[in-house]
Amino acid sequence: MERSSQKVSMAVVRRLPKYYRYLEDLLHKEIYRISSKELSKIMGLTASQIRQDLNCFGGFGQQGYGYNVEELHKEIGKILGLTKRYKTVIVGAGNIGQAIANYSHFEQKGFELKGIFDINPKLIGLKIRDVEIYDVDYLEDFVKENNIEIGVICVPREKAQETAEKLVAGGVRGIWNFAPHDIKIPENIVLENVHLSESLYTLTYLLNEKLQEGTDNLENIELD
Amino acid sequence: MERSSQKVSMAVVRRLPKYYRYLEDLLHKEIYRISSKELSKIMGLTASQIRQDLNCFGGFGQQGYGYNVEELHKEIGKILGLTKRYKTVIVGAGNIGQAIANYSHFEQKGFELKGIFDINPKLIGLKIRDVEIYDVDYLEDFVKENNIEIGVICVPREKAQETAEKLVAGGVRGIWNFAPHDIKIPENIVLENVHLSESLYTLTYLLNEKLQEGTDNLENIELD
Repeated sequence: MERSSQKVSMAVVRRLPKYYRYLEDLLHKEIYRISSKELSKIMGLTASQIRQDLNCFGGFGQQGYGYNVEELHKEIGKILGLTKRYKTVIVGAGNIGQAIANYSHFEQKGFELKGIFDINPKLIGLKIRDVEIYDVDYLEDFVKENNIEIGVICVPREKAQETAEKLVAGGVRGIWNFAPHDIKIPENIVLENVHLSESLYTLTYLLNEKLQEGTDNLENIELD
Repeated sequence: MERSSQKVSMAVVRRLPKYYRYLEDLLHKEIYRISSKELSKIMGLTASQIRQDLNCFGGFGQQGYGYNVEELHKEIGKILGLTKRYKTVIVGAGNIGQAIANYSHFEQKGFELKGIFDINPKLIGLKIRDVEIYDVDYLEDFVKENNIEIGVICVPREKAQETAEKLVAGGVRGIWNFAPHDIKIPENIVLENVHLSESLYTLTYLLNEKLQEGTDNLENIELD
């Protein structure tokens, strides 16, 4: 299946990994064929939404048969770029950096961790899962010499921008950023942020909104 | 500033923590006053977007003065529910669970970590930052007895649903879920997901899209 050269909307792009995950779940359960109706039910999307999404990539379903789970999983994996391998570095060997480094699942999906970088002399020379922690001064050269494609930023926010610049100067094509800072990088580099605090604060907002709703309801009851 | 009882759109809700973060940055830089134009510039939003967003909560700016950074930061913190304290547990003391437990920043923002839970007997009884790791069998009772409000799920995806059910049975009001699984919970409980794999796969998708664009451009050059 060829990817069309038209740009796919970010909403569809963000749903693709979800399809991939659900299809992987089905494979684990040894389910090899699914109708768009059944798929829509488990994913909480409408069947027409699913058809529309997958049509962006040429469509995969067969009238009267549904989807071949294995094939669809494979094709979506290909579309997501998960059939390739990516040389990766992690910058910052603190809590999150170590957690990502220890998460062997990413290795299986093609992310080859080549080095971890930190500023702390006590950490330099240590290893996480056989991957060495190097001095961050060596970052740019290392990225260049090893053709690193993805840099994971797990440094404090004050250091995020300069870390990104070193990664870009070294030649990475993508940055996965965990620092609570909006990094500025050239347009040809892909940036994906995970802002944990923002996610947690959204939770507390919604929690208090629910509480407010509860109070409103109580007030309504009293008024009746 | 009173929160209006009308529901605010999720897009605005998701931007609130970002305002909070930018205002905190400004305070660290000892900037106490900012025009909506300047704020829009640093945040990459339009000035009218910012006015609209903040108007959902009654508006804060003063004509000809701009925003009082300290006041706005405080008010947004209040709207986000960050002036309260939240009794929290983490379930799953693996990589991500440990990283979150070690991240003292959340404690400062009002998240009191009361207990960590795991299934692994080797971990039970150990402590992370003075917080004990308990047997997960004790989870529901612990949540009940300690009036825990937020549960953080860091278990493998196969265990995510049953963990959520124990947390809900115990009485939490919100769940912060790191397991790659779409948890089903009652409507009155708030759920916020952090799907790390999905974020990473979005990155590789976009990386390959850029590569494709590059190839397209090269083809165009050859045709000229």
